[in-house]
Amino acid sequence: MAKNVDLFIFGVAGDLANRKLIPALYRLDSAGLLGDNLRIIGLARGEMSDEEFSRSTREILNQNLGEGEICDIAWTCFQNRLYYMSINFEKAENYADLNCRMESNRLNIFYLATPPSLFGSICHQLHASACVDGSTRIVLEKPIGQDLASSRDVNDTVAQYFEERNIYRIDHYLGKETVQNLLALRFANRVINSQWDNTCIDHVQITAAETVGIEGRWGYYDSVGQLRDMVQNHLLQLLCMVAMEPPNTLEADEIRAEKVKLLRALRPINGENVEGSAIRGQYSAGWISGKPVVGYMEEKGSRTGDSETETFVALKAFVDNWRWAGVPFYLRTGKRMNAKVTQVVIAYKDNPHTIFSDSQLQASNRLVIRLQPNEGIQLEMVSKKQSLKERLNLEKRVLNLDFFEASRLSRIADAYERLFLEVINGDQWLFVSRDEIEASWQWCDSLLRAWREKNIDLKRYGAGSWGPSKAEMLIEKDQRSWYEG
Amino acid sequence: MAKNVDLFIFGVAGDLANRKLIPALYRLDSAGLLGDNLRIIGLARGEMSDEEFSRSTREILNQNLGEGEICDIAWTCFQNRLYYMSINFEKAENYADLNCRMESNRLNIFYLATPPSLFGSICHQLHASACVDGSTRIVLEKPIGQDLASSRDVNDTVAQYFEERNIYRIDHYLGKETVQNLLALRFANRVINSQWDNTCIDHVQITAAETVGIEGRWGYYDSVGQLRDMVQNHLLQLLCMVAMEPPNTLEADEIRAEKVKLLRALRPINGENVEGSAIRGQYSAGWISGKPVVGYMEEKGSRTGDSETETFVALKAFVDNWRWAGVPFYLRTGKRMNAKVTQVVIAYKDNPHTIFSDSQLQASNRLVIRLQPNEGIQLEMVSKKQSLKERLNLEKRVLNLDFFEASRLSRIADAYERLFLEVINGDQWLFVSRDEIEASWQWCDSLLRAWREKNIDLKRYGAGSWGPSKAEMLIEKDQRSWYEG
Repeated sequence: MAKNVDLFIFGVAGDLANRKLIPALYRLDSAGLLGDNLRIIGLARGEMSDEEFSRSTREILNQNLGEGEICDIAWTCFQNRLYYMSINFEKAENYADLNCRMESNRLNIFYLATPPSLFGSICHQLHASACVDGSTRIVLEKPIGQDLASSRDVNDTVAQYFEERNIYRIDHYLGKETVQNLLALRFANRVINSQWDNTCIDHVQITAAETVGIEGRWGYYDSVGQLRDMVQNHLLQLLCMVAMEPPNTLEADEIRAEKVKLLRALRPINGENVEGSAIRGQYSAGWISGKPVVGYMEEKGSRTGDSETETFVALKAFVDNWRWAGVPFYLRTGKRMNAKVTQVVIAYKDNPHTIFSDSQLQASNRLVIRLQPNEGIQLEMVSKKQSLKERLNLEKRVLNLDFFEASRLSRIADAYERLFLEVINGDQWLFVSRDEIEASWQWCDSLLRAWREKNIDLKRYGAGSWGPSKAEMLIEKDQRSWYEG
Repeated sequence: MAKNVDLFIFGVAGDLANRKLIPALYRLDSAGLLGDNLRIIGLARGEMSDEEFSRSTREILNQNLGEGEICDIAWTCFQNRLYYMSINFEKAENYADLNCRMESNRLNIFYLATPPSLFGSICHQLHASACVDGSTRIVLEKPIGQDLASSRDVNDTVAQYFEERNIYRIDHYLGKETVQNLLALRFANRVINSQWDNTCIDHVQITAAETVGIEGRWGYYDSVGQLRDMVQNHLLQLLCMVAMEPPNTLEADEIRAEKVKLLRALRPINGENVEGSAIRGQYSAGWISGKPVVGYMEEKGSRTGDSETETFVALKAFVDNWRWAGVPFYLRTGKRMNAKVTQVVIAYKDNPHTIFSDSQLQASNRLVIRLQPNEGIQLEMVSKKQSLKERLNLEKRVLNLDFFEASRLSRIADAYERLFLEVINGDQWLFVSRDEIEASWQWCDSLLRAWREKNIDLKRYGAGSWGPSKAEMLIEKDQRSWYEG
């Protein structure tokens, strides 16, 4: 970086900033990865002095970092970077004040950790008060719209003031080490990439199961649902990283172009095929970790009456291209499920012929890419059982490609640490392009329309289960089953 | 087993019986794997009572088993199986005595742990004294002959009295768990078997390096050399297990037929291609584990003057079939080498294209099948380095498919334990057929002839090295190198 950096965090008092952004910045600083002259300017509505902001930041770190992570020397250094500015995001004169605070010849990054409804007006005001030049970067948190049309509105507005190359749309899944490791796994290993297609792979599963419910966000969540909240962004991004064609280089543009191609190759789920392709569910009361929890309709903030919003989705998708023809991609995600687990499972085809009489032989090779609870990659293989009692019996063996084991690290970097670095570096490879957003929404819109038009039932599932039984049937009717690990 | 078994060990006082056979039988017994009525009859020249044999057997176990392996209960049980008979292997009347000792309606197994020069006369005498019926099994230790012609003589003689199905030719490498695991690895794992050919595999290396010299066997060894002593049997058998076509079943006949096919597909090394395909070496004085050792010509028992016998061989072989066309198999074996290691390395091809700028990227996938020093199988892969300092750097990762790790066993069964069980079970799958022996000799004979006719130089190498520098050149001229682990 030639320039010194000023990082403006809009919505610094919010939950995301507290739990993720501030801790990530502190950790980067401790690791010596922030430039000497980088400044962090927190912006929020409340009145606060720089000193008060510093004190509250220290509080936040105390709450959100592990024991022993804060040391006095690192804190002093970090504290010197911190500034605060009170702002009403909709008041023009506040932006004039902001402009006065900005210094020439610095790289300005505006990180919008605000409700997305404010993106348009913030951009407008920033521009109106001359806070934006051709190098200014803007970082947008999800969601970008709630369907294709509204995402276009947001993107159009932002594009009035910022060039696409300066717009960093966050999907924090892309910041995870294991997701990036997918690129190494796929493209640096001949044993993997030479059989990454429909000749060797039987099907792919992507699961993002949460045990939490909607955590007091009923008003927001009920207007959105699980498909928009999880599938449109995270699950489709994972699908892209797993299934995209190998990019010719690792340049951001090449990777993003391949992702767009993949999203556009997703076979639409519409009125003709929605039955048998897409299950919607909603949790009712049940048990999580031995404790009773209420159903979705009884959650705090719920309207009386009925809600047709899905808290669970299971999909069977196809990618209509040469590589994946005929290979189903099973996706599922839900709230209040049995366990917190996010993983991709690559299920290889069975052996063409079997010479082992043993029933264990039915075990097939699986590559499991786990983002939660323990980030890592595992290859499931079959090996001879070490035993003289049998002639040649088999057993399943799991080969671990875990980061923890490899590096003996006490922790894996949080997604936001990586993402901050890439914004500062000006590298878009882990951010989502406008074309990707729109292709994702187009696909999801079709599905939502089909659910609506065909009046597809909402299936209830007990909190603490693996979703409605229809979701099991979705995969079991194909003589397959959800991966249980 | 319907019948009770009598196991006659010819040459029970010899080194093989002491170090391998008796300990293996004791361990099988301790594990409850010998039938209740199995008897072990030791035969050797010396006069001994059953009691004396029992005492000496206990001595042998004390010397050759690990601490705590012998327990009184197991020993008592084992001791009750032991019988001894003094015999001069060339005296007809001794076999009449043997016949008297034999009981009808038992399965008789003759295990010839004697010098191979005695195989013919022992078989002849056994037959002459009516010790053989259609169910009697005979177990032959290597070597079977010293070339094709002499191996035919031995096999013809034995075949006069025993049917091929009753002749168990030992190559103890086949008794090793890891060698059998090759079958599971290859045929139960789609990720492995779908790329087990010249489209994905660049080359194969088979190394059997010993640190020992010829251990007082100069007279015998000098007439044989390393090619006959190690390549004709062990290395070619490993090559078969690695490279044979998948058998249609795991039946012994099917496996052995595939091995024969493979051996017959080995491209002959002859006068036309021996230069650049086959290096011969002989060790001179050097250092092993920091201690000086003498050269081959100075070993105890050496003749004065010169010996042209090789103690080291490095070969570049090709299998002329559809699967392996163009894939070199590099073989090397030697005495007094730098380390004791026996392993097969499957080197996968490089990625067709590279998108990683990093030099580490040159690491290719390798599958390492290790028989010594630690039995096991490893897959070498490339993974993302867990680091925020670089965008996407790579590192080599080793996935272990080790038996020890898997089963937390204190030890892996010795090859002879498995082989005894299979002889008793009457299963030939881990024994070498006559056709295999002859195909191996045919190939080795051609090479020996070419060395002789072309006067191929014997290259000296210092004890404790990795062989003559010519052996490095053999592989390096192909832009490859011996695997260093």
